[in-house]
Amino acid sequence: MKEAVFLQEVKEIQLLKNALTLLDWDSSTGMPEKSSPFRGEVEGYLTGLYFERSIGPVIQEALAYFETRPEELSELGKLVFEKVKEEYALNKNVPAERMQEYVKVLNQAHTDWLKARAAQDFGLLEETLTKVVAFQKEFIPYWQKEEKTPYDVLLNQFEPGMTVEKLDQVFDQVKQGIQEIRTVLAEKGTPPRTDFLSRKMTKEQQRRFVIGVVEQLGYDFSKGRLDDTVHPFMTALNRNDARITTRWEENNFSMATFGVIHEAGHGMYEQNFDPKFDFTPLSEGASMGIHESQSLFNEIIIGSNRAFWQKQYPFFQECAEGTFDDIAFEDFYASLKETKASLIRIDSDSLTYPLHIIIRYEIEKMLFNGSLEVADLPKVWNEKYQEYLGVSPENDLEGALQDVHWSGGSFGYFPSYALGYMYAAQLFHAMKQELSVDEILASEDYSDIRKWLTQHIHQYGASRKPNQLIYDATGEELNPSYLIDYMKAIYFDVYQVQ
Amino acid sequence: MKEAVFLQEVKEIQLLKNALTLLDWDSSTGMPEKSSPFRGEVEGYLTGLYFERSIGPVIQEALAYFETRPEELSELGKLVFEKVKEEYALNKNVPAERMQEYVKVLNQAHTDWLKARAAQDFGLLEETLTKVVAFQKEFIPYWQKEEKTPYDVLLNQFEPGMTVEKLDQVFDQVKQGIQEIRTVLAEKGTPPRTDFLSRKMTKEQQRRFVIGVVEQLGYDFSKGRLDDTVHPFMTALNRNDARITTRWEENNFSMATFGVIHEAGHGMYEQNFDPKFDFTPLSEGASMGIHESQSLFNEIIIGSNRAFWQKQYPFFQECAEGTFDDIAFEDFYASLKETKASLIRIDSDSLTYPLHIIIRYEIEKMLFNGSLEVADLPKVWNEKYQEYLGVSPENDLEGALQDVHWSGGSFGYFPSYALGYMYAAQLFHAMKQELSVDEILASEDYSDIRKWLTQHIHQYGASRKPNQLIYDATGEELNPSYLIDYMKAIYFDVYQVQ
Repeated sequence: MKEAVFLQEVKEIQLLKNALTLLDWDSSTGMPEKSSPFRGEVEGYLTGLYFERSIGPVIQEALAYFETRPEELSELGKLVFEKVKEEYALNKNVPAERMQEYVKVLNQAHTDWLKARAAQDFGLLEETLTKVVAFQKEFIPYWQKEEKTPYDVLLNQFEPGMTVEKLDQVFDQVKQGIQEIRTVLAEKGTPPRTDFLSRKMTKEQQRRFVIGVVEQLGYDFSKGRLDDTVHPFMTALNRNDARITTRWEENNFSMATFGVIHEAGHGMYEQNFDPKFDFTPLSEGASMGIHESQSLFNEIIIGSNRAFWQKQYPFFQECAEGTFDDIAFEDFYASLKETKASLIRIDSDSLTYPLHIIIRYEIEKMLFNGSLEVADLPKVWNEKYQEYLGVSPENDLEGALQDVHWSGGSFGYFPSYALGYMYAAQLFHAMKQELSVDEILASEDYSDIRKWLTQHIHQYGASRKPNQLIYDATGEELNPSYLIDYMKAIYFDVYQVQ
Repeated sequence: MKEAVFLQEVKEIQLLKNALTLLDWDSSTGMPEKSSPFRGEVEGYLTGLYFERSIGPVIQEALAYFETRPEELSELGKLVFEKVKEEYALNKNVPAERMQEYVKVLNQAHTDWLKARAAQDFGLLEETLTKVVAFQKEFIPYWQKEEKTPYDVLLNQFEPGMTVEKLDQVFDQVKQGIQEIRTVLAEKGTPPRTDFLSRKMTKEQQRRFVIGVVEQLGYDFSKGRLDDTVHPFMTALNRNDARITTRWEENNFSMATFGVIHEAGHGMYEQNFDPKFDFTPLSEGASMGIHESQSLFNEIIIGSNRAFWQKQYPFFQECAEGTFDDIAFEDFYASLKETKASLIRIDSDSLTYPLHIIIRYEIEKMLFNGSLEVADLPKVWNEKYQEYLGVSPENDLEGALQDVHWSGGSFGYFPSYALGYMYAAQLFHAMKQELSVDEILASEDYSDIRKWLTQHIHQYGASRKPNQLIYDATGEELNPSYLIDYMKAIYFDVYQVQ
């Protein structure tokens, strides 16, 4: 087989995926509501074509042929081969009829999750969620390569190379660090004023500000667009088409502001893949954790930076057309960094956020490596929220029903959020060794920051593993102490801890 | 072969087409500009899949099998079979490599058309347009069934059953009728006042009005959406997803107003196909002419109706927030029906519009049935404009370069516009025998009009031919005298001819 034949097959599979991505984006943005059953038919059919080709005869033949003749592949061909081989291994063993059965259960679980939320009663989800977990446990042996425990297998699907062993150690350190900071803030800190955060800014005022900001940060609107959705997301059809969405609330400007900055970080990652990876499965993020590191770098690292806000605040005031003219910069800046225990992950602040993730991680581990039954999940959930955050849900909607991930079968996904945050802090530390970040953020030209991220992260797409990217960019493996140090610097400053 | 196998194949082909339609809609609405080369790859690949399947082994086998066993097909199966057979016959004979060559020439022609427009010089398009015509002449024998002349073959692609013989006679009558009306208006008519038509209405004011109007007319936004584009269009993914677009000009409200009403007519057609035609090639319009009859029924028949505007004008004034408060209804209504010879088809009024079409028809006939060379086209064009409309283009941009159709290879398409207009007038005449249209348009509830059109036209999709639809709906064949009578009634009224 010629390499060109292999790459052409890979390309056509990517083209199918690209069409599917657009169909999906469209149904999440402005598709007429009654089009939904028709869209289901189209997506179902194309998804079928996509999977058939992904494990089809040409791919099988290519894998067998080049396995023993790697020297016939170019550098790029080798990288693509490795990625295709990984994906093939993940898909080929699971019996097709069990996978079809599982997809049906997932559909039911989504319906039940919505019902359970409406009734604020986890009990309505228990039965199907138990089935979802059972299917995952059934599939784990098919997926397993060298991972030590069942939950390691799930973790690896989202963060290649990550282990329970490593995460246990990292999360212990993070948990302890955050608790120490929270204790200091409670004893010695002065909470910032936040009353003006709910002042009205129209959608158009907010849009003008945040579009100005993300363009400066490097999100390229000639390779993207911004739409309105209830749940914000970024979706990329290719490196020249990385679309973001947001929700606007007139009395809560910070939601869309930080939301768009976050999604733009995901978009900038995709917009800066090396063009040589076009039409290959390498034109995607290295992992969910690395992807999240780019969005959180924008949202939290830059979005918490004093120099950045000092530069942007006059523009913000201008966009707000007088609404914030009486608020001094220091008060405004401090208001953005209030921290407060909360029940809902997506409403939480940048200090307590990792605790929400750690709770989910510990529960997932108990489900797959321990003996936790789905029925007991809400009880454990509520105990952990009380223990780590000192708050207790009044009902399951504020508790174990708040996230869509589990009913969607995405166990092992949550840790990516915390990993992304740790990666972002570690990358920031490394970046500061080379760039005067504060000076850049105080200037008109932010491009050196985007270029540093492109050079160390973006360009590689999925051609390198997360741990390699982090090691090469920062000179060491994942080290959570950068996150803790970073949190201390920000929060002790804002809370005026001496 | 089982009918179900045939229908499943047909369905999958339709699903591919559905995905292609979305890809196309997206690239015409808000796709990031730099995504274009990637989109070309996706569309190229899926178009290939679509055509392969359309003339593939399953379709071939089904056509051979059921040709001799029609009794094994259900009623629906028979209708689908006929349509598939027609489409197959159109595609199968043209040699694939000649078609590919032709597609390249078309791409070049589009580029050259843009260049020629920029230079206002038809000469720059002459060479490739000559090639386009040559390809069409080469393909005509492959397409020909029982049509008498080469141009009949082209006509039939857009309006099945239409002939040069019939059109010559019809267009003669229309030409003569319009010229008589124009003479009367010039001699005895009083032109309406139009100075206030350029008063500013914001996009939001215009949107509010026209959305209100098209919803009343029966365009269903739960099965559609309205976007902004430079060139307005309707595109339907399925009967529950018929999307329309428009362009807004603040100092020319009538452009978007009539534009949206027009596109909504196309959309209402698609939204009301019988559900039994879902996922078959019968879920499309019967012809371009019938499709245009639905948009023009909305735009011209309803959009010229005094009772309609009498009802809508207070709402219009409300949406304009004071801007038209000093304009009496009679003045407003009359301003909408000014007629004036013009050089540009899409800017022309509803009296002279058919003359623009007839000029193009006569030229196309000369190109394919006569001996006109492409090089001589602008000369003939300019002579005909002088003869029929009394105006002469200053340059080719105002003349033979104004439309995209010819450089796109769409010869035989233009007559659809005039046919649609004649069909609309004839349908209106028939509708008035059953419904009190003026009373309905003066009321709150327009639904009987939409239901009449659904009953006689919409529901059938492409399962009946245009001439059958018109005959069944109106009791006679295409008869242009309804259009002439209609024009007389409207224009003699507005121009106060006694």
